Amino acid sequence: MRICRFLWEGRARAGGVVGGNVILLASAAGVASGRLRLRGIEDLFGLPDERIGEIEEGLVRLMNAGLGLGVLDEEAGVVRIVEELAGDGGESAPLLPPVAPIRNIVCIGKNYRAHVNEVAGTAIGRDTPEAPVVFTKATTAVIGPGGTIPAHRDVTRELDYEGEIAVILGRGGRRIPVESAWDHVFGLTLINDVTARDLQRRHRQFFLGKSLDGAAPLGPVIVHRSALPPVEEITLTTAVNGERRQEGRLSDLIFDVPTLIATLSAGMTLLPGDIIATGTPAGVGGGFDPPRFLAPGDVVEVASPAIGRLVNRVGGDG
Amino acid sequence: MRICRFLWEGRARAGGVVGGNVILLASAAGVASGRLRLRGIEDLFGLPDERIGEIEEGLVRLMNAGLGLGVLDEEAGVVRIVEELAGDGGESAPLLPPVAPIRNIVCIGKNYRAHVNEVAGTAIGRDTPEAPVVFTKATTAVIGPGGTIPAHRDVTRELDYEGEIAVILGRGGRRIPVESAWDHVFGLTLINDVTARDLQRRHRQFFLGKSLDGAAPLGPVIVHRSALPPVEEITLTTAVNGERRQEGRLSDLIFDVPTLIATLSAGMTLLPGDIIATGTPAGVGGGFDPPRFLAPGDVVEVASPAIGRLVNRVGGDG
Repeated sequence: MRICRFLWEGRARAGGVVGGNVILLASAAGVASGRLRLRGIEDLFGLPDERIGEIEEGLVRLMNAGLGLGVLDEEAGVVRIVEELAGDGGESAPLLPPVAPIRNIVCIGKNYRAHVNEVAGTAIGRDTPEAPVVFTKATTAVIGPGGTIPAHRDVTRELDYEGEIAVILGRGGRRIPVESAWDHVFGLTLINDVTARDLQRRHRQFFLGKSLDGAAPLGPVIVHRSALPPVEEITLTTAVNGERRQEGRLSDLIFDVPTLIATLSAGMTLLPGDIIATGTPAGVGGGFDPPRFLAPGDVVEVASPAIGRLVNRVGGDG
Repeated sequence: MRICRFLWEGRARAGGVVGGNVILLASAAGVASGRLRLRGIEDLFGLPDERIGEIEEGLVRLMNAGLGLGVLDEEAGVVRIVEELAGDGGESAPLLPPVAPIRNIVCIGKNYRAHVNEVAGTAIGRDTPEAPVVFTKATTAVIGPGGTIPAHRDVTRELDYEGEIAVILGRGGRRIPVESAWDHVFGLTLINDVTARDLQRRHRQFFLGKSLDGAAPLGPVIVHRSALPPVEEITLTTAVNGERRQEGRLSDLIFDVPTLIATLSAGMTLLPGDIIATGTPAGVGGGFDPPRFLAPGDVVEVASPAIGRLVNRVGGDG
């Protein structure tokens, strides 16, 4: 199952995505065998795969009955509402981050070997870490697909992109063993871990340079665990203005998803809804000589065939 | 005004503290001139000092009428309910953190000169920072006064204390000028920024070593901005098993409270309820040679005459 969230008629809605069509998830859950009352995607977190499958059947049934709400437009970051509902002028419902963060996003630094090398000469770098490098991004940084990344020219001249695959936890816990860690994953989405390199250096710890408003585009959809291909087939690219800069593969992580979950939860209780950004591959702007930072008007696309395309434009000043 | 939170009859209650007596804040707000309906201390955040003063008058009126609920016991971390309400055996309502964290606690590293020096020889240290060092602690680390700090012997052998003064924001904002930053402060409380030094080193970024469950004792009360002495008179001590280890003064911060708020909010929107731990003075266990880390059974007391005493015991394994 693929899930998005969008703003329609003044409210945040969860949508199921089937072949590019968006169906209200609450309706699908209502017609599914279990007749689940769904207030938000959070209500799906604890469900076993079987119940998720039932809701997915509900989605297909509604779609086949012509009851789709609209069509997902990842490029624009909207759901284009179908004509009968949208009226004359057409209507576009802006996509929201597929999940609202319950607390800071947990991020992993230097988790691809080639990226470790490219930052080795900078203040950020050193050698390959012997344990995951863990920091966080503020909740207020999160924006949806299609949302504008502020350029923040008053505080940074070194705004950089970092395309990443993000894990959304469906079940929390402490001391989660590596062996069962995937059972705690609800699904995957994409994140752009936008980073102000100058702030990252100046404040030594990464948090502030990672937490500017709008510095965490998230989406476009969450792909439920049950619908994912093997990790070897989950690839990732980042492009700026159409030019490919980053390429990665989830199976290339130095610390893989189960290891991250086990390491984080060893002494810290993880919560359903927690978001873990798994790290960025080589090719960040700061790794080029001279560096290729983001400028107002740039369009950044983080994409994965298994997940979707997360497209965001860098705004003007402010 | 001094505010605590505690668990009584299965619910979290906010209490006003007057001369050691605890009065239900909701009752005081109800009899105050504005007759505010108070669901939690969050409802106080945006209020002007004048309204806070009215509620404080309500507290005094209730106390003078003999309508106090109990007595604050900071040593035990409880409110001792008055006899008529508690029944025969007496009753103790455990203190909660005075505010529930809305997202990760923002923490400032190396913000007292003497502390910078004591960690200069370790992996944590370097020279005095030219800008605030900013990291976060997980929400799940927060415990109340009197709560047990787990020893976490399965993940760390270097558990350390860091007594600090914490700022609770009443008003959020972005680009908050230094000049008006204090207007955004709701009040001050104390925090023990408990740190696993080995995890802090191993994971390079501070977050994970700072975020073990129970590693953020908070309280005992929030002192509203209007009731605070000048910063020169806000002192701080940390004692382990009665032996004084740390001494600081809010006016000794390298980056003072207004500077922190202005720096954080330059590009990141701060929210009402945000908690900022302002940094720890010299005297942490890891600064001694040999180091003096915490052990099961140790009692740590972070205290400030202007705020109160935050007392927590280190538990056994697990």
